[in-house]
Amino acid sequence: MAETTALTDVTALVRQELDEVAHIVHAALEPESPELRGLLDHAGRFRGKQLRPALVLLAAKAVGEVTPAHLTIAAVVEMLHAATLVHDDILDGAGLRRGLPTIHAVSGAEVAVLLGDYLYAKAFHMAVALGDPRCSRVLSETVRVICQGEMTQMVHRFDADLSEAQYFEIIRDKTAVLYGASSRLGAAYAGADEDVAARFQVFGDQLGLAFQIVDDILDVDGDEAVVGKSLGTDFGKGKLTLPFLWMLDQAGAEERRRFVELYARHATGDVSPIDTADQRRLLEGFDLQGGVRYAHERADECLRTAVESLAGLPSNPAVDALRSMADYVLHRQR
Amino acid sequence: MAETTALTDVTALVRQELDEVAHIVHAALEPESPELRGLLDHAGRFRGKQLRPALVLLAAKAVGEVTPAHLTIAAVVEMLHAATLVHDDILDGAGLRRGLPTIHAVSGAEVAVLLGDYLYAKAFHMAVALGDPRCSRVLSETVRVICQGEMTQMVHRFDADLSEAQYFEIIRDKTAVLYGASSRLGAAYAGADEDVAARFQVFGDQLGLAFQIVDDILDVDGDEAVVGKSLGTDFGKGKLTLPFLWMLDQAGAEERRRFVELYARHATGDVSPIDTADQRRLLEGFDLQGGVRYAHERADECLRTAVESLAGLPSNPAVDALRSMADYVLHRQR
Repeated sequence: MAETTALTDVTALVRQELDEVAHIVHAALEPESPELRGLLDHAGRFRGKQLRPALVLLAAKAVGEVTPAHLTIAAVVEMLHAATLVHDDILDGAGLRRGLPTIHAVSGAEVAVLLGDYLYAKAFHMAVALGDPRCSRVLSETVRVICQGEMTQMVHRFDADLSEAQYFEIIRDKTAVLYGASSRLGAAYAGADEDVAARFQVFGDQLGLAFQIVDDILDVDGDEAVVGKSLGTDFGKGKLTLPFLWMLDQAGAEERRRFVELYARHATGDVSPIDTADQRRLLEGFDLQGGVRYAHERADECLRTAVESLAGLPSNPAVDALRSMADYVLHRQR
Repeated sequence: MAETTALTDVTALVRQELDEVAHIVHAALEPESPELRGLLDHAGRFRGKQLRPALVLLAAKAVGEVTPAHLTIAAVVEMLHAATLVHDDILDGAGLRRGLPTIHAVSGAEVAVLLGDYLYAKAFHMAVALGDPRCSRVLSETVRVICQGEMTQMVHRFDADLSEAQYFEIIRDKTAVLYGASSRLGAAYAGADEDVAARFQVFGDQLGLAFQIVDDILDVDGDEAVVGKSLGTDFGKGKLTLPFLWMLDQAGAEERRRFVELYARHATGDVSPIDTADQRRLLEGFDLQGGVRYAHERADECLRTAVESLAGLPSNPAVDALRSMADYVLHRQR
């Protein structure tokens, strides 16, 4: 594997702006009444990789200058991302503990629903306050598409007939559109014309696709200590990601039939993910590692398309940073 | 009790427009891919009293004319309301069945989270598409305030020291602001100047306060067959509404102490609401019916303030309909 690009190197050029963005997000979560501080601090504690805001800012610098509007857009994008994560968490622990609801766990779910909604509403309000409607138009549509992607994924849970095209549609909707929107808005608000803005959208879309494919690879193949969560959670919950789809595609008809029958059985069982021993039995005789290699190649392709989309642009440090972001996405270990 | 005003009479003047609004909502939930039809139909089935869209349309007719923008605003308001209901449902049954999660119940919660998010995003997108930013500015802030109200209510669950002022703050945030916004936007988009728009906001705010107080009264005092849900669910879940707050305020120190001690104990218990026998024991010796009468008087006051806010306006059928809406809100049995 190639030497990894550190995230800090990728974002160094916009480090100061990213701190300002974090400050804007923090200020946006300042409660009107002190009794809500505890709840809202919970949302404010979130600080992820800041890839999406970095994309807004680097796209801006690649084309022109970072303006105050860019800082707002970057904060809005990060808050929308945080809202999706908060809502994702509802099933992944907050609502259920050891399979049983406790009053704490149920409050947890209720808190998560409201926190996510609060983040969405506040983020939209900030977007609207920009005046220029491009940002709120693009981002409200983006959130709709994210929900659409999550719903489609839900509909296909435990569906071993999911096609690769359907998988790509799902990850485009649930993940890539927000990258695409971040990249496009960064460029557009820096004065890019429609042709250049469209190139930046392609860059973000393809980067987002690769990011999700690598995420899905790490879920089956990551070093648990590095990724910080147990392995194979997607598979256990009925989400068949690219490595599994390739693996099933390569398998013989008989093996595939056995898999489909056993896997689908879990769809009607209880809510706890398939346990490790059962997972191992299910995957016996399949070439999952081949699937991982295949998925890695597809992610690499997406990133090559991403980098090519910027080919016509005059080189500058921000364009270089965007290229190294692509490298980071492919080789990240967590 | 005065003769009740029928909802159909109140909304007769905008019946045709309300049907158009329902059509817009329906079209907005048309899925891009047919496999999501089942999920989105679930949201589209919702058809409530249409009080908020009726308020948008009647405010418009009271001031001037209903324009295409009004139909969009009315649809957006109804979709935002539906989104809050879908998310409210997460704890009221979808997430838990008989206290235990089943895969169906958990899917239910996940579906509800995504459906609500989808409704919010789609509604904001429609608001932004109006061009004129007043609607998206007001409604994004409104949704933030609704979440704030719901959070504050959550923080005060099982809190017998909740003051009447705090109760009013909670119901203003979680319920009244959307009525106020609906009424203001209806008037503003029909050409009302700021003074008139502000009067309509007061009308909606006060109508919304009264609506919630009556809702809270019906929860303890309604005919179960009419209201269509079991009685006292708020109380059982730790929400002390106005009748209870008055009741506690009137009680002797000793009785109050006993209540606080017993009630607070439920805060740490399991998630199922306090059962009926326990509720009866808790309320022994208190004058809850006095609280109901008091709450009814307060709702009546709000509605008088609402009607007074329209006093300066030239009379017309829409203004009359708004007045009868106030009457409907006070006397409704469900």
